[in-house]
Amino acid sequence: MERTRVAERRERRREQRDQAALAKMVQPLHRLPVYELVGTEGIDLIHQASMQILSEIGIAFLDDEAVGILQAHGVEVRDQVAFFDPTQVMELAAKAPSQFVQLARNPENNVTLGGEHLCFAPVYGPPYVLDRDFGRRPARLVDFENFVKLAYLSPWIHHSGGTVVEPTDLPVSTRHLDMVYSHIRYSDKAFMGSVTSAENAADSVAMAEILFGAEKIREQPGLLSLINISSPRRLDDRMLGALKVYAQARQALIITPFILSGAMSPVSVAGTLAQLNAEALAGIIFAQMVEPGTPVVYGSFQTNVDLQSGSPVFGSPESQVALYTSAQLARRYHLPFRSGGMFSSSKLPDAQAGYESIMVMLPTLMARVNFVLHAAGWLEGGLTAGYEKFVLDCEFLGMLHKFLQGLDLSEDAFALDAIREVAPGGHHLGTEHTRRHFRTAFYRSELMDYGTAEQWNALGAKDAYQRANEKVKHLLASYQPPELDAGVEEALRDFMARRKSQALAGN
Amino acid sequence: MERTRVAERRERRREQRDQAALAKMVQPLHRLPVYELVGTEGIDLIHQASMQILSEIGIAFLDDEAVGILQAHGVEVRDQVAFFDPTQVMELAAKAPSQFVQLARNPENNVTLGGEHLCFAPVYGPPYVLDRDFGRRPARLVDFENFVKLAYLSPWIHHSGGTVVEPTDLPVSTRHLDMVYSHIRYSDKAFMGSVTSAENAADSVAMAEILFGAEKIREQPGLLSLINISSPRRLDDRMLGALKVYAQARQALIITPFILSGAMSPVSVAGTLAQLNAEALAGIIFAQMVEPGTPVVYGSFQTNVDLQSGSPVFGSPESQVALYTSAQLARRYHLPFRSGGMFSSSKLPDAQAGYESIMVMLPTLMARVNFVLHAAGWLEGGLTAGYEKFVLDCEFLGMLHKFLQGLDLSEDAFALDAIREVAPGGHHLGTEHTRRHFRTAFYRSELMDYGTAEQWNALGAKDAYQRANEKVKHLLASYQPPELDAGVEEALRDFMARRKSQALAGN
Repeated sequence: MERTRVAERRERRREQRDQAALAKMVQPLHRLPVYELVGTEGIDLIHQASMQILSEIGIAFLDDEAVGILQAHGVEVRDQVAFFDPTQVMELAAKAPSQFVQLARNPENNVTLGGEHLCFAPVYGPPYVLDRDFGRRPARLVDFENFVKLAYLSPWIHHSGGTVVEPTDLPVSTRHLDMVYSHIRYSDKAFMGSVTSAENAADSVAMAEILFGAEKIREQPGLLSLINISSPRRLDDRMLGALKVYAQARQALIITPFILSGAMSPVSVAGTLAQLNAEALAGIIFAQMVEPGTPVVYGSFQTNVDLQSGSPVFGSPESQVALYTSAQLARRYHLPFRSGGMFSSSKLPDAQAGYESIMVMLPTLMARVNFVLHAAGWLEGGLTAGYEKFVLDCEFLGMLHKFLQGLDLSEDAFALDAIREVAPGGHHLGTEHTRRHFRTAFYRSELMDYGTAEQWNALGAKDAYQRANEKVKHLLASYQPPELDAGVEEALRDFMARRKSQALAGN
Repeated sequence: MERTRVAERRERRREQRDQAALAKMVQPLHRLPVYELVGTEGIDLIHQASMQILSEIGIAFLDDEAVGILQAHGVEVRDQVAFFDPTQVMELAAKAPSQFVQLARNPENNVTLGGEHLCFAPVYGPPYVLDRDFGRRPARLVDFENFVKLAYLSPWIHHSGGTVVEPTDLPVSTRHLDMVYSHIRYSDKAFMGSVTSAENAADSVAMAEILFGAEKIREQPGLLSLINISSPRRLDDRMLGALKVYAQARQALIITPFILSGAMSPVSVAGTLAQLNAEALAGIIFAQMVEPGTPVVYGSFQTNVDLQSGSPVFGSPESQVALYTSAQLARRYHLPFRSGGMFSSSKLPDAQAGYESIMVMLPTLMARVNFVLHAAGWLEGGLTAGYEKFVLDCEFLGMLHKFLQGLDLSEDAFALDAIREVAPGGHHLGTEHTRRHFRTAFYRSELMDYGTAEQWNALGAKDAYQRANEKVKHLLASYQPPELDAGVEEALRDFMARRKSQALAGN
């Protein structure tokens, strides 16, 4: 009987939860003071070391056309290694906007990147997925679609992301088409383009043009795409190919050195940051050479290797220091900043995953990151996207939205009348002030367990992994696709069919 | 065979881990910039609201002798409710030292409380314990001893704490004797006294005098004891009894309003903080009336109730805001500050426990808390001490020690020669700089899993809870008690025997 009542209450809460899941997303603002770990002099030292790397040690551009563009801008290039003039670096970096809007299919979901704006996006890139029922397995298109749906349903995720998982059941040469299509079809939030080659980037632009109109996306980008620098000091031909296509089309780019300190950079944080900053700036100014004013986000993906096993370590104290400091560097250059996420090395959503995720996510918030890729779903150092991890992460993203509201210091918030009204040792549960505010006073997670041990046992003694598993199933069962204009859908399908048949024919 | 090699490597790491476990504790320093969430004007507003509560609404002191002391200091008291003059409040608060040293049995383990100093102490108060082998059960003396041993073995725990668990197998009237004795016998770190009555406080002082010498502990306290205010606006006779004994003996006190917003205070954070600050100051200045100069720590234990179930919610965004702000209040009064910990509502060390613990612990660090009770072992809203949770928490306390070292900006840390030496796309694993630093570059957790999925499977696919269970057993098996002077031990045993026989005789 206790079990029945508890179950009924749970069902009622589940209904309330559904309504919350369909709640409109609103990008939160960074209105709290920013945390600056290093003083201005320290930031200057890192800046100067980066300028030394850019001018004396150089950055490799493994693409002849790119070398030509650099040389046309007066950059000295020897054996594909470019040596930059610091003054020119700063002039070109200043051409990038400090803030811009990316279009979403639903204009209410347009996102602003830069300044005080915060944008959470799902995990990117995992070739595997994990859920509690079927374990770890290669990701397929159905998983891709499911993660797009979960991101669509969460009011705490503002962006549909890009390669939310790698759909390994599709041909490599055309899977980018299915991925872009899935973002458009199953969500109405902003999304990312393919960066695996110049051709795939061009396909992504073509599909964004079908969706938004070619002219419109030249004014405000319809795509945001992730250019990784293959550290140390190298942009490869694949990434340069995609970068050129997007910049020419004025589509937004995130330029991100991907660094595991000790392997792709020195073991020391200062050296890592000097290199990372030089690499990010090299990519950012190259985009400005291709097309001045191209919207770019300064990206930083940094953690360290475990020097005994060679594996990456997530949630490390060194990466926290690097995250805070690289945010300060991006602010120095007035550029939107991408970093952080709910990172973990764990193979499943256990205690390790929880601890590590917040060890990165809170500094992400306090450092004032603008675009947070991997804000939900990341497991196993990025090799696995976890279904349950995704919804667990979202609960805490919701809490961070509330935290960012800071402290209300209005007269009503001081509630001195209520304090006067309640006798010493009494309680505030029934005061007029409590009754007036109790619905909105506290962020309430339905997925976390706050009851007594007895209630928890009556509900089956389920840990967070089990409860999240139920929530995932419930969310996916409740999913309704947002409406898509039939003409747009047909045009997208026609485009994909043509490109797929060309790929089959070997073009 | 792979399994054997992996197991061998694991054994080797376990040996290294043992050495780390016996490493000397060193209190870290808060040298990073502090995070101030609210501006000075906001802190002034809260201060003024607190002064209004202290002078107009009043604080109840449920003890006639205490009322006499207040009246002797010119405080107006009506029906046991005291109304304070703000000027006098500030004058008395200024008599408390801003920093002090608490003695430990091993002088190398003396702790400094206040200023830049950070001190981590174990969970306090749980009547239950949990481990993975035997589940949740009432805590016994053996559990108490085990948690004292685990705290002794961790280099990241600086204090042995107080009621690490409630030894429910011992008589209520004398268990405080066994608790104080266990801290002295099984650890050589600083510890806390009993606050359950004036008599028990006097026993604690007597045992500290046997250990340290009566004169010595008047110069520097040998005990730090936890006085909770029973909010709203009330100090009960039990706590006042203990407070008076400790203050008269010049032993250190933590004065902590224990507040679940919405129940013991308004649902709003500003009102909660105004009340909390008034209550903390009332306790602090009362201690100064009893004995000017008594070392006191400004304490804040605040979270919110779940307004649907009435249960406390840990890791909430509202409690983060309150934590940052109450730290600013304590700094305004130049008082050492206690708050935070590895809090969770979860019933076991699952993902929820991990997420929630860091959601509180990182703000604890960034807010510059001096004394962190509940830094390890807390589960189920404080009702349960988790063995595995304790060692998991300690891993992350270690990481926080490393984080507090901040960013090394020396020339060597910039490693420009190494950056120059490694070709674009090459790796830093073998550079002279890496070889020189790799042993100390990164904090390394042995308990977290950083290997590949294949390695993890080969080791039995153990989650963090399982691995922590193994570590607990290994630590307790490796425990060796620190030597204790035979005369001191005998004197303590004699004292306890006498007090126990008096208790049996009904005294």
